[in-house]
Amino acid sequence: MSGTTINTPAGTPFVEVTREFDATPAQLFKIVSDPDLAAQWMGPRNLAMTVEKYDVRPGGTYRYIHRDDNGEYAFRGVFHTVEQDKQIIQTFEWEGAPGEVCLEKMTFEPTESGVRLHQQSVFSSVESRDQMIEYGMEYGVRDSMDRLAELIAKEG
Amino acid sequence: MSGTTINTPAGTPFVEVTREFDATPAQLFKIVSDPDLAAQWMGPRNLAMTVEKYDVRPGGTYRYIHRDDNGEYAFRGVFHTVEQDKQIIQTFEWEGAPGEVCLEKMTFEPTESGVRLHQQSVFSSVESRDQMIEYGMEYGVRDSMDRLAELIAKEG
Repeated sequence: MSGTTINTPAGTPFVEVTREFDATPAQLFKIVSDPDLAAQWMGPRNLAMTVEKYDVRPGGTYRYIHRDDNGEYAFRGVFHTVEQDKQIIQTFEWEGAPGEVCLEKMTFEPTESGVRLHQQSVFSSVESRDQMIEYGMEYGVRDSMDRLAELIAKEG
Repeated sequence: MSGTTINTPAGTPFVEVTREFDATPAQLFKIVSDPDLAAQWMGPRNLAMTVEKYDVRPGGTYRYIHRDDNGEYAFRGVFHTVEQDKQIIQTFEWEGAPGEVCLEKMTFEPTESGVRLHQQSVFSSVESRDQMIEYGMEYGVRDSMDRLAELIAKEG
């Protein structure tokens, strides 16, 4: 299993994340779309997570809260496309920066030995993308991808 | 009343539209969020429009179809933010290019003499934005804004 690749081309509002997992697209899709498992992989390990809602269907909404010793960080969004075993397209907003909404597209591509997860995030400006990177987005993404790999090994 | 300004900075996935109207933010919001009025202003005049669904609330979805002599063009999306008299944030997809989803943010800003509508569209790539411009997006936007001004004059 390879590590997580994160590309953040300078001067663009894009973040591209790629990771391969030892699973089928169907296994990976099942795990990432399960509201009962979300708290086990989304976000950095050192944050406690409460999932208020995670309704993975077109028009379904989600909201979750991360907590550490400094406070709470709430995130919310809505699902645009949910295509079983293939792709999920959703909005994403940190409530600390209201109105700075991001569009996220996650695709599940079969490979010879497993599945390649590709996630593109498109921010509303280059500045808001750069700020999310400064806030530690890459650290959170790497931790999420590692936790997802562990969850796959556990859930099968 | 001024005309419509459209900015499409080269090498970016952004389209920025600005237009001032002789209305209050509340009047403009009421018209653009009314499903029964959508067919009277969205899109170019020469296309017939059928609105299947237009449910303006967070998590609400919409779908409409434009028709001309050459065929049908269906569009769909979901609302992320609906803040009365202030802003609407939604996704937008032409079903002819599935998966190429765009994020749109519309804000209503009071001015001395009326309201300034600002709409930002963020595409998933510079290429898909450029293609939408080639398909005549600007023409459709200008017609929509002119039709909206006419509807304001009629509805009050």
